[in-house]
Amino acid sequence: MKISARNILKGKVVKVSEGAVNNEILLELTGGAKVVSIISKESAKRLGLKPGKKAYAIVKASNVMIAVD
Amino acid sequence: MKISARNILKGKVVKVSEGAVNNEILLELTGGAKVVSIISKESAKRLGLKPGKKAYAIVKASNVMIAVD
Amino acid sequence: MKISARNILKGKVVKVSEGAVNNEILLELTGGAKVVSIISKESAKRLGLKPGKKAYAIVKASNVMIAVD
Amino acid sequence: MKISARNILKGKVVKVSEGAVNNEILLELTGGAKVVSIISKESAKRLGLKPGKKAYAIVKASNVMIAVD
Amino acid sequence: MKISARNILKGKVVKVSEGAVNNEILLELTGGAKVVSIISKESAKRLGLKPGKKAYAIVKASNVMIAVD
Amino acid sequence: MKISARNILKGKVVKVSEGAVNNEILLELTGGAKVVSIISKESAKRLGLKPGKKAYAIVKASNVMIAVD
Repeated sequence: MKISARNILKGKVVKVSEGAVNNEILLELTGGAKVVSIISKESAKRLGLKPGKKAYAIVKASNVMIAVD
Repeated sequence: MKISARNILKGKVVKVSEGAVNNEILLELTGGAKVVSIISKESAKRLGLKPGKKAYAIVKASNVMIAVD
Repeated sequence: MKISARNILKGKVVKVSEGAVNNEILLELTGGAKVVSIISKESAKRLGLKPGKKAYAIVKASNVMIAVD
Repeated sequence: MKISARNILKGKVVKVSEGAVNNEILLELTGGAKVVSIISKESAKRLGLKPGKKAYAIVKASNVMIAVD
Repeated sequence: MKISARNILKGKVVKVSEGAVNNEILLELTGGAKVVSIISKESAKRLGLKPGKKAYAIVKASNVMIAVD
Repeated sequence: MKISARNILKGKVVKVSEGAVNNEILLELTGGAKVVSIISKESAKRLGLKPGKKAYAIVKASNVMIAVD
């Protein structure tokens, strides 16, 4: 499946923290940047997410803001 | 100003593409990953975005999806 | 690629309206409901979207609101 | 009340799953497609959502992505 | 129509700026705070938005971030 | 830090409701409008949010919808 989102950032899962309904997924991108994602537990399970697994962070460009110091 | 968004990714502006109302900003994160952002022209101007400028990509964790191959 | 988004709605492209930077995509879901999406022209081109093509509308569950009469 | 969101999809509630803070609402659209929504418990209560109730899934067009096989 | 979004902020339209596909709507809330919204031209027309008209800014709580100095 | 989001609404924290993973923050804007935000507990702690503290509600303009009666 190819998706329209502009940001498809390659990395691997570092940590999966379980909540009641949602899981928090910590991804380390190729190059070292870290990205946090909140998805449902059901989705995390369906994708088989666990530390070490290769995965992508997907973000629609209109959901990315920019900041400067 | 400190913001609640979990993802505050350091990088620098690579390219600013101007549209009628919005600009498309290409950022290269520390480590090499590239991120595309769509923000208003007014905001891009207010922040003084141009190639080479240090900047951050800001994304709320609930706007990050995960995918696997 | 499998994605964490909970809503992956099957349909086909009915219409592609081109803007300066973004395209507006009209999708008819299986069953007849119609969904409008705004994505970048670049993404629409990369996916080869045109009337009649099978496609999916993808929406993160946290971006769906509910209303009642 | 009329709202600017482009996607106002008619259906009925199939299931309400309660979490600590949020509820997960499963809607069946006219035509049969199913849509999952995450809203606060307070909102679900305020709207009186329960299986069988007529309701709409509301999604801003900029929050809809497209994918193809 | 009653909607699940937690933030339904009363105000009136101050300015409508037309783009190619989207309009930018400036709203003044009761109390004086100003809010900017980007919606499609089609939606702005359908709602009859023009300076002076009473309107609401609608924001899902999960789309509100917090910052401190 | 300066951020691209168009809506940076000044106010003060009225209430912090703790959930398992997320906190719900109630802000009163200058002028009296009230805004609800859902952010992670970790972010709420990092920003030191508590009743009476000055804070801003930050919303990207593309996440603001408009409604009329």
